[in-house]
Amino acid sequence: MASNTEDNIRFKALVKELSGKRVVVLGHRRPDGDCIGSQVALTRFLVVQGVHAEAFNSDPVPRKLQFLTRETSVFTPDALPKDWDAILCVDCSDVDRLGPDFKDKLTTAFASFDHHVSNTHFAKHNFVRTDAAATAEILADLFFDFGFEMDPVTAQALYVGLVTDTGQFQYGTTTAHVFQLAAKLVELGACPGDASEELYENTSFERMALIQSFLQSLSLEFDGKVCIGTLPQGVFESTQASGEDVEGLVEYTRSLAGVEIGILLEELPNGELKGSLRSKRKEYRVDRLAGIFGGGGHVCASGFRISGVIAEVYPRLIEALRDHLAFVQSTL
Amino acid sequence: MASNTEDNIRFKALVKELSGKRVVVLGHRRPDGDCIGSQVALTRFLVVQGVHAEAFNSDPVPRKLQFLTRETSVFTPDALPKDWDAILCVDCSDVDRLGPDFKDKLTTAFASFDHHVSNTHFAKHNFVRTDAAATAEILADLFFDFGFEMDPVTAQALYVGLVTDTGQFQYGTTTAHVFQLAAKLVELGACPGDASEELYENTSFERMALIQSFLQSLSLEFDGKVCIGTLPQGVFESTQASGEDVEGLVEYTRSLAGVEIGILLEELPNGELKGSLRSKRKEYRVDRLAGIFGGGGHVCASGFRISGVIAEVYPRLIEALRDHLAFVQSTL
Repeated sequence: MASNTEDNIRFKALVKELSGKRVVVLGHRRPDGDCIGSQVALTRFLVVQGVHAEAFNSDPVPRKLQFLTRETSVFTPDALPKDWDAILCVDCSDVDRLGPDFKDKLTTAFASFDHHVSNTHFAKHNFVRTDAAATAEILADLFFDFGFEMDPVTAQALYVGLVTDTGQFQYGTTTAHVFQLAAKLVELGACPGDASEELYENTSFERMALIQSFLQSLSLEFDGKVCIGTLPQGVFESTQASGEDVEGLVEYTRSLAGVEIGILLEELPNGELKGSLRSKRKEYRVDRLAGIFGGGGHVCASGFRISGVIAEVYPRLIEALRDHLAFVQSTL
Repeated sequence: MASNTEDNIRFKALVKELSGKRVVVLGHRRPDGDCIGSQVALTRFLVVQGVHAEAFNSDPVPRKLQFLTRETSVFTPDALPKDWDAILCVDCSDVDRLGPDFKDKLTTAFASFDHHVSNTHFAKHNFVRTDAAATAEILADLFFDFGFEMDPVTAQALYVGLVTDTGQFQYGTTTAHVFQLAAKLVELGACPGDASEELYENTSFERMALIQSFLQSLSLEFDGKVCIGTLPQGVFESTQASGEDVEGLVEYTRSLAGVEIGILLEELPNGELKGSLRSKRKEYRVDRLAGIFGGGGHVCASGFRISGVIAEVYPRLIEALRDHLAFVQSTL
């Protein structure tokens, strides 16, 4: 995949316009590796270009991603300055994803960098490439075309975006171009071994207990085509695990033989219920399934948030799945 | 890393010498992705060069690797022809690793392709590169230099060797060159999504139940420096899981934060007990720890087999660990 020339020209103009300005780089709440990696990388890139850039997120940086923010912090909302010249968003499909702390301030979004199909093009300048495996891929392409002399910390941040959003180079989004970028980033100082140790060999005992409880909850529906696992509030109390320990657990549901759609239902402390949906094949369109509950995302990875508890939402989900699977069947 | 010119010249001469000959391509027993991938790729390459090549392994191809052998079989020992002109070995550090069915026949090994540090250079022509992340990396380099017009099946076989032997591009062996090769292989038709689906998204419900039971058994010893998980025979009965489902479970013990040594104890159907040992750092020398129980292996990955049950071996293991950790401490 060649880098998009029009985007590259627009990006150069944008960087020029931001020179000397005060810029706030935002990401989505419950940030993942691609979000934090992209926030850190974009902030570091801008600083080198003479922009006064700082990154903020409505949620704290998850423990396993904190190795990325040692040199470039991602601040909490209370540290937000009173005024700024421009807001840039990464990995956010829409304004809601920024979280309530930032949502209202976003009428002035200057630029957005994102790869979600459901992106609403909410910013003045939108760098949205739905063919990209990660927002980090979009940024890496723009930075390389820009001629940016990338340092090892920025390379590692972008590498983490690639490795996490491709599920360790596992998803169908993993193109030859993704591997070419990974090779370039490693040449520039990214270290796959170090990243993996931080990301995947640093599991808390609480998370391990949470995984165990989650696996115990797995149930197969629709002749094994669908696997649903649940995390009621009580599990967080008994395991002492936190919300960030949930990340990636939905992959267990999808990894089962015969399963086409894997689902995780999580009761949040605020009384809401979060659904994470994954499919093996794009034909199973979990973005559409999430849409039934007011959510969205990618065709193979999506989510929703609604008010309610598992006992109430589970049967509604089964009903929605019945219709959805019939729809999918009609398209196969 | 540039491809090794001397090796490339030797390889071309070797291929020329084998033209029209009958060749047997062998791999190690209990074959993994790099072994089967390399056997399939080398066999397919040779056939295109006019060599009558066929692959054999002393053990059957594991279920999750069978997608690699749809077009190029890896046969069992009983199918071995009565005579051949040359034996080629892949991913085998020594003759013993071929298994008893082939070991005796190996006095005539013509060539060997391997990346293990412990390789004994047992063949006439040894293509051993201990800097390579996988035997598939060595073969890919040789094939590309040869000018081989690689087909998608061969590309996928080599890709599987890379992805499995790097632990999904996770280990310290994952260089920029590994990613460059992955990019090339994907360009030639390897499909990361398909490979992952077969390798990692094909988990049986029985295995998932086994993982759940195993996680429930985890216990931390020595102030969290050691994590031990157990699989008593009863667990295989209750979960309906088989021995093949145990593969990789020990990684959960090692992945915990603060843990230096992860251990899995498994009661085998024959009354023996199998111990699998993993460490994050080479200083923790689990090969030495395994040695106390008559086993061995690599400094970060080793194992042993003894007669006994968990209830009896666990306390002996704790005693051995006490001495071993004191020894490690004295070397740090």
